[in-house]
Order: sequence, then structure tokens, then C-alpha cells
Amino acid sequence: MTASKSKVVDIHTHMYPPEYISILTSRQNIPLVRNFGDNSKDPRLILLEAEVPSLQLALQVPSAPIPGRPLTSHYASLGQKIHFMDTHKIDISVLSLANPWLDFLTPEEASGPLPATINNDFERMCQLHPGRLYFFATLPLTALSTQVILDSITSSKGLKHCRGVIMGTSGLGKGLDDPNLVPVFKALAEAELPVFLHPHNGLPNSVYGPQQKDYGHVLPLALGFPMETTIAVVRMYLAGVFDAVPGLRMILAHSGGTLPFLAGRIESCVLHDGALLKKFKEEKRRSVWDVLKEQVYLDAVVYSEVGLKAAIAASGEKGEERLMFGTDHPFFPPLETDEQGEWESVGLNAQAVRKALGEGSKEADMAMGGNAFRVLKLFEK
Amino acid sequence: MTASKSKVVDIHTHMYPPEYISILTSRQNIPLVRNFGDNSKDPRLILLEAEVPSLQLALQVPSAPIPGRPLTSHYASLGQKIHFMDTHKIDISVLSLANPWLDFLTPEEASGPLPATINNDFERMCQLHPGRLYFFATLPLTALSTQVILDSITSSKGLKHCRGVIMGTSGLGKGLDDPNLVPVFKALAEAELPVFLHPHNGLPNSVYGPQQKDYGHVLPLALGFPMETTIAVVRMYLAGVFDAVPGLRMILAHSGGTLPFLAGRIESCVLHDGALLKKFKEEKRRSVWDVLKEQVYLDAVVYSEVGLKAAIAASGEKGEERLMFGTDHPFFPPLETDEQGEWESVGLNAQAVRKALGEGSKEADMAMGGNAFRVLKLFEK
Repeated sequence: MTASKSKVVDIHTHMYPPEYISILTSRQNIPLVRNFGDNSKDPRLILLEAEVPSLQLALQVPSAPIPGRPLTSHYASLGQKIHFMDTHKIDISVLSLANPWLDFLTPEEASGPLPATINNDFERMCQLHPGRLYFFATLPLTALSTQVILDSITSSKGLKHCRGVIMGTSGLGKGLDDPNLVPVFKALAEAELPVFLHPHNGLPNSVYGPQQKDYGHVLPLALGFPMETTIAVVRMYLAGVFDAVPGLRMILAHSGGTLPFLAGRIESCVLHDGALLKKFKEEKRRSVWDVLKEQVYLDAVVYSEVGLKAAIAASGEKGEERLMFGTDHPFFPPLETDEQGEWESVGLNAQAVRKALGEGSKEADMAMGGNAFRVLKLFEK
Repeated sequence: MTASKSKVVDIHTHMYPPEYISILTSRQNIPLVRNFGDNSKDPRLILLEAEVPSLQLALQVPSAPIPGRPLTSHYASLGQKIHFMDTHKIDISVLSLANPWLDFLTPEEASGPLPATINNDFERMCQLHPGRLYFFATLPLTALSTQVILDSITSSKGLKHCRGVIMGTSGLGKGLDDPNLVPVFKALAEAELPVFLHPHNGLPNSVYGPQQKDYGHVLPLALGFPMETTIAVVRMYLAGVFDAVPGLRMILAHSGGTLPFLAGRIESCVLHDGALLKKFKEEKRRSVWDVLKEQVYLDAVVYSEVGLKAAIAASGEKGEERLMFGTDHPFFPPLETDEQGEWESVGLNAQAVRKALGEGSKEADMAMGGNAFRVLKLFEK
């Protein structure tokens, strides 16, 4: 069926705003930005712990391979973001800071003015393009006290274009199933700010074996990232966070990691664990399927019709109303075509939506923007 | 559509035959079988490295919780297996040794007569129930030389009821992408023995966080197991094993772990990695989708319609011809009903097949047994 067309919305699109780049440039440890002189015309962005050895080598041996990735204008330029949106006919973007967010700040730094600076930088960018840009704020999760985080939620809520928060899987340092994080989730639920959950740490390199160097970043990015997200959200589920904070809404990156595919096995494992099953019954816990359809939204960044159909089916009878298109810009630029033109990575995900939901259908239209517009209230208040 | 009914075949069903139990009972280190005296009427089966601390505690403190799981007759009794098959209307079972197989043997033990003893034990059991039992053999992967493994493949092929081999993800100790394992895969392809790939190690416990003790075995079993399988098979894919050994056939446990859901992301990550893409083009490597439909079969042990549909769709246009029902017996016994009756875990997977492919359809019939019968040639030769 066809219907009046919704705006196209990209809910998974990152930036490192100028203030954030300054922080990274001043750092000696990963994450950092560094210029390797004549070896490279762009400064390099080095984010992952796995890049420590190559960074150390490059600092000692000028001829060694340059670590990280080029910090192109795609990471920090608002003009570039708007150009990318126009090229791909994206009407609205919900910007978020990319990983590792502010998770590396010392407690003192996180408790100072810096986090607000970043969020204000996003608000400023949104105001330059009314109706086209909104953002997910970043919380100072390593702060000296929970109160600092709660205050940051209040401040973020006060910013006109803030529509949620982005969060990694570390929480206060012990993961998202940490009981000390429940007050933060409660405050987010109260403020009606959904959490966009995004991976950063992946899995320990040991699981990728001695030949991993031959495979580039494929194993950590294609497998480690979605597996990290899945583990984080299942830990939340098993700890009872969703039942303790029924108002909490989570948007899971990469269509939930692997949660849609594994939900049945998770449910079966709970049903076959005596102690856990007893606790679930006593506390009247809901099934993972109920949580998926009542508190979880999935983005559409899964690069296949197969994955997208599973994501929709896992989200309940009206699963197509819970899916939100995203691009993951500025990551995964095209290798063989002009970066200023259309990106293959965007095309793969848009094509998956068309194939899974039907070209020109109302459902595809909702996934491409209607759902995000409705759920995140993407209009000027 | 309806059709003449195929036999119901269970391709994912384990046993620890008597010879194997003797080995485990004689061991001091995990894996082992141990009786904790008055504390427990059954001896306990302790398999996982994660159980080391609880084993050590139980050996020192008599009142400590008993580690592992009861070694019930379901693990070692052929009569119990036949009863289970009859109860669930399973016509044929393709038995396999359960993890950790023979992966813990010293090189000397693996190179001696012991591995053949285990395979002969399976052959003996199959001969007791003609037409109802076949098996996947176990290879002495830790042997002193590759030749010992190759000889074992020849011997296994000579056993009348052997229809493939079961394998974990360790290979010769460095994973399944180890170049030294290619001759083994070539010999298996030559012998037309498919590899049933099954997890054992899971992921390092560090990923489950400080509260993991509250979640029983759910995280390692529901997430670690399928993630381990996925990582292993993707490492094989990236190393080019499938292209190097086009005759190799793999049957992936738990519907491929998470491979059907992540295949699109894997493909996209390869397309966006310059060095890897160049190598793939030079070597004319196939896509992960091609490998899935040409060299991979998936079992149906995924406990949900959502997962099963994704498994079928990921296996190509005729994906329903590549799916094979399994039970994972004797694991996941029912907690609240008689173990001699119907098992909920079996019902969940059979129901998923009916829902995904249509009650009474030809496709459901093939998934429940027709495919396994055809692919594994489950008839007396």
C-alpha cells in the first residue's frame, strides 16, 4: 500500500564536534587524535584499545604503518553532514557523539564543565538547521557522583533539540546491569529520554585467534560490535532492569546486535535454569519478547533483508512500527567511489528496508522515517 | 502443500558413551566426572573452565554448592536415548559425542588407540538399532601429527554408520582458520564426511561482568555458545577455507550461532575494508551468502520462529532444503515435568519449524527429517 510520504530520518549518524576533537588532540592515550607529519595529510583518529601496539610502533619507527583512520571532514564538519544528508535525501538527522563518547574522562573531568560543552555544541549545530537536526546527548558516566549524571540529564532535557542520550555498554564501569545505574535509567525514563545503546569495546582480541591481523577490522566490527550490544542488553534483561524501570526506552544499534536471532535461545535458557526461573516467576518478570515489543526499538543498520525481517518479526506483531532507519555515517565510507557521492553502506540498508517491507509501502515509509518522527517527536516545540 | 511423510531425524543429539565416561572419571582436571559422596546421589559432570573455582571450593569445603550437573542416565544410556526418540516420535538419530570431545587429550593419548575406541563404541550402538541410529565420529585433533588425524578420517569412513564428524572450534589448537588444518578439511571433503561444528569454549567470562553469578548458565549458553560458533566459521570464511576446499560441507549447530543475522554486516565490512576487498577480488572469493547456500547446512536448534525464518532465508532461495531438525538431547531437560516424558526444549524447536514453514507442509516435513535423510544418506548401505 502507498501513503502520504514521511520524512526520511537517520537516527544512527555520528559526529565528533570541534570541542570533542580538541579533547582528543590534547590526549596522550587512546582515544586520541594525532598527526604523523609527512606520513599523512590528515590527522589520524585512533579509538580502539586494539590499536595500542600499532600506535606505539608508529611513534618509534617512522616507516611503520600509520595506525587508526584518517580524521576526514566527515567526522567533524557540519557542512559535510548536511551535504551527506542532501545527497542521500535524508530530511532529518538525529546526531550523536561517536564512541567512545566521554567514557574515558577522569571522574574530575567528567564532573566539570566539559560534558555540557559537548552537548551544547550539538544543540548549537541543531539550531543552525532548524527542523533538520536533532541529537542524542552524552552523559558524564564516569563522574564523581550519580548526582552529576542526574543533573546532566536535567540539563540535556532542557536543550531544545535533545531527543535522548547515547550510551555505550560500560555504564559506571561495571556494565549496564549495575544496580547503581538504575537511578540513572529511572531519571531518563522520567525525562522521557530514550537511550540509544551503541557498542565500542567489542570482545577481547583473544577470541579472534592468531590470524586476526589478516582480517583487517572485520572481526571486531562485524562480530565484536553486535555481540557486545547483545551481551549488554541481555545482562540488563537478566538483572531485571526493564521490569524495574518500565518507562525506560532503549534504541539498539545495529538492529539489536544479534538479539532478534538469539531471543528464542535466551528465553529457552531462562526456562531451563531452575534458580533463575524461580526468580522470574516470583518477580513476575516479562519474557524477552515482551521487552522487545514494549521497551525496545531497533535501528535498521543490519545490511541485509534477512536480518531486517528478523528484527521486525522479533519486535512483535507491529514490529514494523518499531524500526528506524540509520546510516552509521561517517563510518564505512565508500572505497571505490567519491566520498562526496552516494555511499554503498547507506544503499545496502535502504535496499534492505525496501526488500523487507516492500518498495513504496507504508511500512517501508515508516521505517525510513515515520517511526522515528513519531517516537522521537522530531518537530520544533 | 502436503506430501508423503519423511522420517523424523534428530541430527543434534549427544551421548557420552561408556568408554568416554571412564576417561572422564579417571581425570583430575576439568573435564571430569566426580562423585561428591553423600552430597549427591548422581556423579557430577563438570565440563567448563568456568566451573574450576566451584570445583576447587567443593573439594575443600564439604558444605559448598556442588559444581557441574548430574550425570544422569540420559548422558550415557542407549536405552534412554531410544526411549527419548520414541517419546518424541523421532525415527532416526545421528548421535555425536558431546563437548569437549577429545580436545583435552594429550598428544600421546590422542595418537594412541583411545579415539578409535570411542568411535567404535558409537558404531556398536548404531548396530544395535539398525536403521534408527547413525553417528558423527570424533577426530583426535590434538594428535602428534596430522597423519594421525588423516588416518582417523579413513578409519571413521570405514565404519558402517558414520555420516560425518563433530568438531569444536579449537582445531589443532589455533582455531579453524589455521592453515595446518586445511589438509584435514580436504580429507573430510574427499571422504564426503560433513563437519558438524559445535561450540564449547564460549567467550571469556570477563565479558559477562561482575554480576554474572546471578544469571546461572544463561549468558555462556545462550550467548557465548552461538557467538563462539559464529566467530569460528567467519574466521574460516575470511581465511578462504571454503574457497580452498569447495567440497567441504559444514553443518552449523544452533542454526549457525548468529551467522544468518550477521551475514549482511560481515559482507558489508569486507566490502569496506580496502586490503581485504583487494584480496577477495584477486582470489575471486565468494560472498558469505554464496558459502551459506553452497557449503553450509544449519540445524534447527534456535528455539524461535524468528530465528528459524532467518536461518532459512540466509541459506538461499532453497534455504528450506538446507535445514535439519535437532534436539540437543540430553541437554536442557525439563525442570517441571517428568524427564521420561516430553521435553519442552524439543517442543519449542518443533513448534518453530511448524510455524516458520507451515504445519504439515512439505517444507516442514523436509526440515524435520527429509533434508537430513537425503544429505546424510541415512539408510543402510
